[in-house]
Amino acid sequence: MIRNIFHAQLAAAAAAHDSWVCVGLDPEIDRFPAHLRDRPDAILAFNRAIIDATADLVCAYKPQIAHYAAVGAEDQLLDTLRYIRERAPGVPVILDSKRGDIGSTAEKYAREAFERYGADAVTVNPYLGRDSVEPFLEYGDKGIVILCRTSNAGAREFQDLMVDGRKLYQVVAEKVAQEWNTRGNCLLVVGATYPEELADIRARTGGMTFLVPGVGAQGGDVRRAVQAGRTAADDGLVINSSRGILYAGHGDDFAAAARRATLELRDAINAARR
Amino acid sequence: MIRNIFHAQLAAAAAAHDSWVCVGLDPEIDRFPAHLRDRPDAILAFNRAIIDATADLVCAYKPQIAHYAAVGAEDQLLDTLRYIRERAPGVPVILDSKRGDIGSTAEKYAREAFERYGADAVTVNPYLGRDSVEPFLEYGDKGIVILCRTSNAGAREFQDLMVDGRKLYQVVAEKVAQEWNTRGNCLLVVGATYPEELADIRARTGGMTFLVPGVGAQGGDVRRAVQAGRTAADDGLVINSSRGILYAGHGDDFAAAARRATLELRDAINAARR
Repeated sequence: MIRNIFHAQLAAAAAAHDSWVCVGLDPEIDRFPAHLRDRPDAILAFNRAIIDATADLVCAYKPQIAHYAAVGAEDQLLDTLRYIRERAPGVPVILDSKRGDIGSTAEKYAREAFERYGADAVTVNPYLGRDSVEPFLEYGDKGIVILCRTSNAGAREFQDLMVDGRKLYQVVAEKVAQEWNTRGNCLLVVGATYPEELADIRARTGGMTFLVPGVGAQGGDVRRAVQAGRTAADDGLVINSSRGILYAGHGDDFAAAARRATLELRDAINAARR
Repeated sequence: MIRNIFHAQLAAAAAAHDSWVCVGLDPEIDRFPAHLRDRPDAILAFNRAIIDATADLVCAYKPQIAHYAAVGAEDQLLDTLRYIRERAPGVPVILDSKRGDIGSTAEKYAREAFERYGADAVTVNPYLGRDSVEPFLEYGDKGIVILCRTSNAGAREFQDLMVDGRKLYQVVAEKVAQEWNTRGNCLLVVGATYPEELADIRARTGGMTFLVPGVGAQGGDVRRAVQAGRTAADDGLVINSSRGILYAGHGDDFAAAARRATLELRDAINAARR
């Protein structure tokens, strides 16, 4: 399996920090500790504290862009990415935007992720087909993280439909592994909330890397996710927690609580790998 | 069929301007006339000229958000929406963002579209299932425009897969028409480039309104699209052209050229309705 620059960055950060944990940076101002809420740069201040508290414990950060766009905080997202590069050099950033549009527009979305924000990877939606993903795939050094089996309950509605003896998410997984991943820059989103599906997709896609949301607030079991999802070589997983880490504490000690929650998740993952 | 406030706005604008034309506001600075390119507010200036030239000829405007996000022009998008409300009062705005994420994040995207930008409608991607669309559907007065059969060549890849005797896009169409549209606020995206699919989806969804991209630069045939897609009551279509109108001219007279292209499209649609 070809592994590109993004995969090398991810592997280096995972090894350096002995961690498969990705911290999702999904800021919700009304859940911030009171002393931060009214600051004009509340999001950036919150993110900086979380990054300071977790920089040595993670293999990646994943800001979810809707949380910034909803409140017009693009500048604080940009500053957050800058801060990660400064404070956690070598830790890659996955911009979670789940974009999907026709090719001429997808080019603009790729530019948003990689040129405006300087992200190392981006999440994309496959529903529009290969030509909608191609402008992303052309960034051979980056990670293109394609939605396959998502972590929400509604995922069943279309992703589980049977298509000639396979479920739609299985078709997506095989298509990406066999046809879209020629540059070695593809990853898949597979929710931790469905360990059987994780194991199934692992079997269908060999050594591909999965971004696994759904532990923490969404209730996915870490041990089952690790055992179902990892590769034979004991790698291939990036396990994301957002709310479970960001809002582990609610007072002035929120950053310390976030660090403890990150350590717990890292340790639970590492225990499951043994 | 229930028709909500958005549908009423759309019908009123269509009747007032005798038009099913939606102008897509997809600004690309390097295609602007030379005298605009270097202005810091180039996008807004361009959009204002296009809106001035077409305000009496359209039933809707559709800004595609990637074109703003790629260059950090959120402020100019906001100002464009303000300008539409001022210059073309009553003409609804469809924010084309094709969002799709788990429910807690979808809430943020809905807030982005409806509260930050004040859009009247938004496009969304169905791949994550109903719970990912529900936060949008809760806006009963707005239009929720769900991707069904898109206009690009790659649409076939997943949307045409056979699921128990129906294609995936047919499953999506029927699900939306029968289950998601309880508030009468759903529309579907169906590309003009596939008239047979338009006719098929019309037959499956009764009087639902379709947003139809793909005429103009993408080559869809207006007459075939109108005849395949309209309802028995001669309504139900919003036909979008972006590049074919915005870049009809390249010099100082670009706005006049855009007006001519909009008129031509409006007339071609109206001729096909007779």
